[in-house]
Amino acid sequence: MKPRTRPLHLLATVISLSFLGGAATTGCRAGKSRPAAKPGAVATPGEGASLEAIAQAHNLDPAEARAALEVYTPPGRYDEFTMFSSGGHSGSVYVVGIPSLRLLKEIPVFSPNTWQGWGQGADEGDKILREGSFSPNLPTQTWGDLHHPQLSLTKGDYDGQFLFASDKPTGRVAVIDLRDFHTKQIVKTPNTISDHALFVMENTEYVVTATFQPSPGGPGVYAPLETYKDRYRGAITFHKFDRAAGRIVLAQSFQIELPPYFQDLAIGGKGPSKDYIFTNSLNTELSTGGNLEGRPPFEIGASRNEMDYMHVINWRRAEALVLSGSPKLVEKGGIKVIPLEVARDEGLLHFVPESKSPHGCDVAPGGEYILTSGKLDPHVTAYSFAKIKKAIDEKNYEKLDPYGIPILNYDAVKEAYIEVGLGPLHTVFDDKGNGYTSLFLDSAVAKFTLGPPYHSAAEGWKLVDKIDINYNIGHLQTPGSNTVRPRGRYLVALNKWVVDRHPAMGPLHPQNTQLIDLSGDKMRLVNEAPSIGEPHNATIIETDRIAAWVTYPALTDPATMQTPAANATKQGDERIEKTADGVHVHMVVIRSQYKPDTIRVKQGDRVVIDITNAESARDATHGFGLHGYNVTASIDPGATQRIEFIASQPGAYPFYCTEFCSALHMEMAGWFMVEPR
Amino acid sequence: MKPRTRPLHLLATVISLSFLGGAATTGCRAGKSRPAAKPGAVATPGEGASLEAIAQAHNLDPAEARAALEVYTPPGRYDEFTMFSSGGHSGSVYVVGIPSLRLLKEIPVFSPNTWQGWGQGADEGDKILREGSFSPNLPTQTWGDLHHPQLSLTKGDYDGQFLFASDKPTGRVAVIDLRDFHTKQIVKTPNTISDHALFVMENTEYVVTATFQPSPGGPGVYAPLETYKDRYRGAITFHKFDRAAGRIVLAQSFQIELPPYFQDLAIGGKGPSKDYIFTNSLNTELSTGGNLEGRPPFEIGASRNEMDYMHVINWRRAEALVLSGSPKLVEKGGIKVIPLEVARDEGLLHFVPESKSPHGCDVAPGGEYILTSGKLDPHVTAYSFAKIKKAIDEKNYEKLDPYGIPILNYDAVKEAYIEVGLGPLHTVFDDKGNGYTSLFLDSAVAKFTLGPPYHSAAEGWKLVDKIDINYNIGHLQTPGSNTVRPRGRYLVALNKWVVDRHPAMGPLHPQNTQLIDLSGDKMRLVNEAPSIGEPHNATIIETDRIAAWVTYPALTDPATMQTPAANATKQGDERIEKTADGVHVHMVVIRSQYKPDTIRVKQGDRVVIDITNAESARDATHGFGLHGYNVTASIDPGATQRIEFIASQPGAYPFYCTEFCSALHMEMAGWFMVEPR
Repeated sequence: MKPRTRPLHLLATVISLSFLGGAATTGCRAGKSRPAAKPGAVATPGEGASLEAIAQAHNLDPAEARAALEVYTPPGRYDEFTMFSSGGHSGSVYVVGIPSLRLLKEIPVFSPNTWQGWGQGADEGDKILREGSFSPNLPTQTWGDLHHPQLSLTKGDYDGQFLFASDKPTGRVAVIDLRDFHTKQIVKTPNTISDHALFVMENTEYVVTATFQPSPGGPGVYAPLETYKDRYRGAITFHKFDRAAGRIVLAQSFQIELPPYFQDLAIGGKGPSKDYIFTNSLNTELSTGGNLEGRPPFEIGASRNEMDYMHVINWRRAEALVLSGSPKLVEKGGIKVIPLEVARDEGLLHFVPESKSPHGCDVAPGGEYILTSGKLDPHVTAYSFAKIKKAIDEKNYEKLDPYGIPILNYDAVKEAYIEVGLGPLHTVFDDKGNGYTSLFLDSAVAKFTLGPPYHSAAEGWKLVDKIDINYNIGHLQTPGSNTVRPRGRYLVALNKWVVDRHPAMGPLHPQNTQLIDLSGDKMRLVNEAPSIGEPHNATIIETDRIAAWVTYPALTDPATMQTPAANATKQGDERIEKTADGVHVHMVVIRSQYKPDTIRVKQGDRVVIDITNAESARDATHGFGLHGYNVTASIDPGATQRIEFIASQPGAYPFYCTEFCSALHMEMAGWFMVEPR
Repeated sequence: MKPRTRPLHLLATVISLSFLGGAATTGCRAGKSRPAAKPGAVATPGEGASLEAIAQAHNLDPAEARAALEVYTPPGRYDEFTMFSSGGHSGSVYVVGIPSLRLLKEIPVFSPNTWQGWGQGADEGDKILREGSFSPNLPTQTWGDLHHPQLSLTKGDYDGQFLFASDKPTGRVAVIDLRDFHTKQIVKTPNTISDHALFVMENTEYVVTATFQPSPGGPGVYAPLETYKDRYRGAITFHKFDRAAGRIVLAQSFQIELPPYFQDLAIGGKGPSKDYIFTNSLNTELSTGGNLEGRPPFEIGASRNEMDYMHVINWRRAEALVLSGSPKLVEKGGIKVIPLEVARDEGLLHFVPESKSPHGCDVAPGGEYILTSGKLDPHVTAYSFAKIKKAIDEKNYEKLDPYGIPILNYDAVKEAYIEVGLGPLHTVFDDKGNGYTSLFLDSAVAKFTLGPPYHSAAEGWKLVDKIDINYNIGHLQTPGSNTVRPRGRYLVALNKWVVDRHPAMGPLHPQNTQLIDLSGDKMRLVNEAPSIGEPHNATIIETDRIAAWVTYPALTDPATMQTPAANATKQGDERIEKTADGVHVHMVVIRSQYKPDTIRVKQGDRVVIDITNAESARDATHGFGLHGYNVTASIDPGATQRIEFIASQPGAYPFYCTEFCSALHMEMAGWFMVEPR
């Protein structure tokens, strides 16, 4: 028997709840937030004072004092774990230490970053952003809404080599190399207009993305909204990843067409379910909104049905079909596409009813269960993969959807239905067979036991603990939750509202990160920090599993990782060459000089400056900032970067090192002289 | 008798020292850095455990355990102090909590920020960046190297109302309103090519900037390097600040021409010295570099002389000259300029010998002393303002510089000459009459006593403590150091190299912030965190002195702070108007709808979308992300933002809320339909 998820009246409650969200939660949590201690108000006991006395002097209660000692990462010590967090529409990935919650680095991906010279002067970023842009007929895309960072996997566990991320508003995928923490490639997914979900296969054979909004065919393709049902389609795309090259290879990638539902999060199976992938959906109502055109607002139209459909996709069979060169496939946008009808007829796609408007779609570490939760239904539903497989084999269908896709019998595939609280979004796992679900409306995290083999049938699927969160938690994460080996120990709550948790810094508030200790039976809140950008999910790995470089091998081109770079300059070879249309400068930088330090050009010249950093010392990065010409580059030790521009305006323009590099850093400067024509 | 600063042989040592900088310091500090604890390796004692037991289990020595309790800012509690730190060539200001060192906010200033929609979609940032660009004949400047943030002052103390910052590579000044933490104005300083130093007068009457590299007249003005001595000039600029309007008024600003030395840091007098300002200089040798043209490299050419010149400027008399409408002034670049010869003849400008290549120029809290240190001389020199005044009145000159500017007798104006260590850069102050100087080459901070009235003649000017820093400290800061009322308590070391202090995240390392406790006789290192961007100085204020808004008054235009904004839309007035060349959308956003949610245009239409956020709840920011069209805006509660672009490519493009705002956030989306022509 199906869960009676209440349709519009609950929806109404939810809407008003979410309206009051900020205010309401302010009230119910206000007790937790205290004003700043007045300057100097804090007494500081003398040398011999006991830790208890010091804690008291600093107004820490016993639980806070304990937490202080647990999360403090003393100067010089490294954090145990490193979190790669989505920066949302900042377009970046933020790297955060756990348990200290210190921000260790920002990795620019879809948006320029002038500190790193990314997309602002040096060719490396400019080229990658240009080649990975949305459409040749629109200006280069210079922002992204970065979602769902995922680390590369080997045998289903993190290998610390690569990081991938999706861009929601353009349908793009980025590849980040963790040797230098640089984005190496941005790929526009063909035929789509959005990529929301992203995950990688157990050995990173494919980087898989699912669309959110459907499209009649990608950038530049128009079809009236009135033809939505027939001409709009979603898609799931398998981007082939060449690990040796560190690049996605579109020619070997493929795509499966899906109905024009909004596909939400997606995840690959494991163990018994490894040949399958699963993705949520919403708006199976096919609503297009239209609140000023007499149609219901989208949020209402898309919430009419009691149930949406989790997609169950046999990717192994789909890949076989592609590799067989079957004539049923079509070539579209430079990629092999399995049309919806073919996916249906080949039995690649089945649906499972799930509570409406779901968010998370997560697979238990062993792959036996798939868990989803509709945010308007206070339960998590666990599906048994064995039962799903059986229902598929036995064609145990409830009905077909409007596109003829079979919908499996809900009661036949459901394993458990656990009440967790209001607004359940995402579920993560620990190393003890427990699941943790974020509750957006309750502002809480619910902990529950998984069924066999994690816990006995009697003890499985029980709510065992709950902890308050401030406020409105979205995603949550545990170390290795998406792998075959969750680590447990900590849980990070990525909260959407901060309200009064941090001092007011203007009407735009940060998001809020809260760290929860999982080592005991009861969850304990132990640390908190604002998060910059919007943390749509994160991925957490042991810090010492990341084998990053501290400098580049001499003469490296960071864009290709080739050495020697074709445009590298050795010390002694510094020179300025006249070219047909200007000058080509072969420059070497090393503390505390640019060589050459004087560049003389004529107005209108094309200027190419290849800069090689001859340093081999860790940290000896030099910048190249050119006054007024809107050029800034960051050249790391061993690296070569190219800068290219037209000297359109005459004048005397200094250039200088933007990275404080030595005692004579202020003297590390030169002159770029543009003589009028 | 002058300090015998050793010329080139010390310089050589310094250069090689700075070469070895990274490696050497790694060696001598390596002991302090430890690998991360292995996952799970940390035992967690049960409920009743003593703090000592917990500290031990987490491998904290007694000093670390103490520090942990002192700096921990429990979830919900605010940091006592807030630091506004320069982000260098990130173009942003970073707001950091003290003592937790948590990053609270990034304020975009000179560079776009897509998370905040700054310079990427909404008109607010686009307009301010465009109007504050470097030159009308070059593309809009989209990066800056933000230096020297300074808070507005009332009676010489922070009032928490405004923040100002300079942009080195363009010679620009930014005004940030601390009600909403938005940049309100960027002003290009006329006639210059760089602004390095920035400070404000005791009641923020003027925002004063000093150039770094001189220029023959600003953007577009060319003069051969060979005419450097005669045609290049430095400048100090007094930007008139209208506090009521919250804007700089160029028409009431003025500029004093200076010799083409590189002016470095500058600072205003206080108390007895309040009519004067002081600025360092380097390259009094007038070197132009030329290492590939047979001339000495700039770093060598600019370090030949034993002494450079601290500039002593009577700004009060200069202002009087300007207000008198004297015919000796010239109007240039829309601003009144006092030519160098006039400054000389009117006695506005005197020089004081200072150890070569200085960095810091700081005034004791009472205004009696000016302290500078040449980074190649291991001393801090304290000058007595009374003696400077006397020397000026008595015309006690050593000689005239090549431009006829009198150079005061060093021995007549020197008060003290304190040996502090290798590579002294900047000096800050506490509330107990002590000075603290950063030592770049020693990687240390030296604490010394000030003379009378701060300490007796016998106890004054003595080195009393020193603490190791990792590594290569540049600027340092204490709360209120630049005011008449330094707070003491903490010292922040803004370190340029991080080396092994944080885990490797690729060849580009962050900078490093270290927090030192000043409450006892001995300085104690208590906290550490990476800093993003390059912290060229910071300014620290009590958190509760910042009166920031948490939402905008309804219908506010953040660019002007006017309400109601001319383009604001009330709920019920949502509509789409056809215009001569396209459409004008009057949109209201409120959880969880855009109204209208469907926009239909024809290819080539000019699209204007005015978006009003009708929310009044703190945190209820909504984003507007338009798929593919490279438009992202962030509309805070109460605010109205305008977006304007040409719908050049046909297609079906979703738009959606980029800020997770409610349980139905995923459903907060609409369609932008571009029909082909």
